[in-house]
Amino acid sequence: MISSSANAQIKHLEKLMKSSRERAKEGLYVCEGIKMFLEVLEQPDALVKAYVSESFLRQEVFQKKIQGRLTVPWETVSDSVFDRAADTVTPQGILGLVRQPEYDLKRILAAGDRNLLMLEDLRDPGNLGTIVRTAEAAGIGGIILSKGSADIFSPKVIRATMGAIYRIPFVYAEDFQEVLSILAGKGITVYAAHLAGSVWYDEADYTKRCAILIGNEANGLSEASASLAGCRIRIPMEGRTESLNAAVAAAVLMYEAFRQRRKGPVGES
Amino acid sequence: MISSSANAQIKHLEKLMKSSRERAKEGLYVCEGIKMFLEVLEQPDALVKAYVSESFLRQEVFQKKIQGRLTVPWETVSDSVFDRAADTVTPQGILGLVRQPEYDLKRILAAGDRNLLMLEDLRDPGNLGTIVRTAEAAGIGGIILSKGSADIFSPKVIRATMGAIYRIPFVYAEDFQEVLSILAGKGITVYAAHLAGSVWYDEADYTKRCAILIGNEANGLSEASASLAGCRIRIPMEGRTESLNAAVAAAVLMYEAFRQRRKGPVGES
Repeated sequence: MISSSANAQIKHLEKLMKSSRERAKEGLYVCEGIKMFLEVLEQPDALVKAYVSESFLRQEVFQKKIQGRLTVPWETVSDSVFDRAADTVTPQGILGLVRQPEYDLKRILAAGDRNLLMLEDLRDPGNLGTIVRTAEAAGIGGIILSKGSADIFSPKVIRATMGAIYRIPFVYAEDFQEVLSILAGKGITVYAAHLAGSVWYDEADYTKRCAILIGNEANGLSEASASLAGCRIRIPMEGRTESLNAAVAAAVLMYEAFRQRRKGPVGES
Repeated sequence: MISSSANAQIKHLEKLMKSSRERAKEGLYVCEGIKMFLEVLEQPDALVKAYVSESFLRQEVFQKKIQGRLTVPWETVSDSVFDRAADTVTPQGILGLVRQPEYDLKRILAAGDRNLLMLEDLRDPGNLGTIVRTAEAAGIGGIILSKGSADIFSPKVIRATMGAIYRIPFVYAEDFQEVLSILAGKGITVYAAHLAGSVWYDEADYTKRCAILIGNEANGLSEASASLAGCRIRIPMEGRTESLNAAVAAAVLMYEAFRQRRKGPVGES
């Protein structure tokens, strides 16, 4: 049993939870909690190692739902060391060291007919996680992020995705604007959420495969990206609201596109 | 200048920021930051007292945009005391002691034709603030909260509303289910978001004045409330998503209702 916070494996887990750079370098990340761990178990070859607190070891959920399915090495960790290492306030007693999945931009673009989501410099981990969760629900086929966006493998993002991170393909684009040009070349219209958009979001036609583009929480889209988008769309706002939360704006747009793809655009019913 | 954290006024501000009970007892709350403070200045009789950090005192934004408009007493606070008292990580140097507005359920129900929003036991302050912000944007006329919901006057909620808290009427219902019955009696259909809803959310007709009802983040709606709602609606979800974030679900529903009220229901265009 690991009973010291100075243990090299614990130090390693803590480093991976804190540092995006470390995660990228090693191609690993840490997942936490029962629900997320059970989801990882369903991904072939994702789990590298498991860490179980001494209390959780004695719980039925571990003994019945997890222990028998562990095909990788695992360690027991004393409760006090576990609780200090975990990222959450009330840790559930299970951490997984997990391989980062690798998705390919070409394959995301080539795969199927589903809409795409593009995120430029989306910085807030809670927003990003919520957006990934909503994207899966709204039938998005893949997410393309700019390099300046939050790290999808950070513990807070992973938690907020509620498992969607394991199921939706995503890629950080080396050159975000190049992707916008590629999409245009393929005839995939990019609808950019923009406070100065000239088309109301619910007057655009999302029934053919398209991409929805959301910008940074504070500054919106860069001029370069906005100018490469096929259509700038705007969400109407009553009162004196200056903008919507980025996850809310993304949800409203993804669900309008999803609604239309299920029913056809407004005016054609 | 206040230069000790033991100062009674500082203690008072801290207590109001931490304790929902204290806020309710005194009918006061604390607002923080330049944007929120400027919004408070526009509400007649809302501000009771202002607290300005010694650095902020020397800034142009204080001298040009705030100082001349202060008709209530204000105190200077040393930077170190101010930063410790503030709720944010990087305080902007201005706090306001503010009177809680009081709205009346009857007047909210009687006022105008706008849709209403009902929140049952919504617990997360970030979610609540985001929902209030989205509600103003989506043209909601008033929000009715159950007693078990988060306190709208907590610093985190206030921040997340981005000022909408000053502009949208809200009330904590003594008896939440009674309000549901009152709405039914007035012919205002309550559309309850429910994972087992029998009507897709985008097949309901929101063009007449109606209410949207959202339940607790983890447990959804109580049976009692769900059974009193006129219609249980469901948001379709692809993939393996089990639910949407509460603020996202509220946004999708409020914006579909808003879309229909601007354009008429689907099928009638």
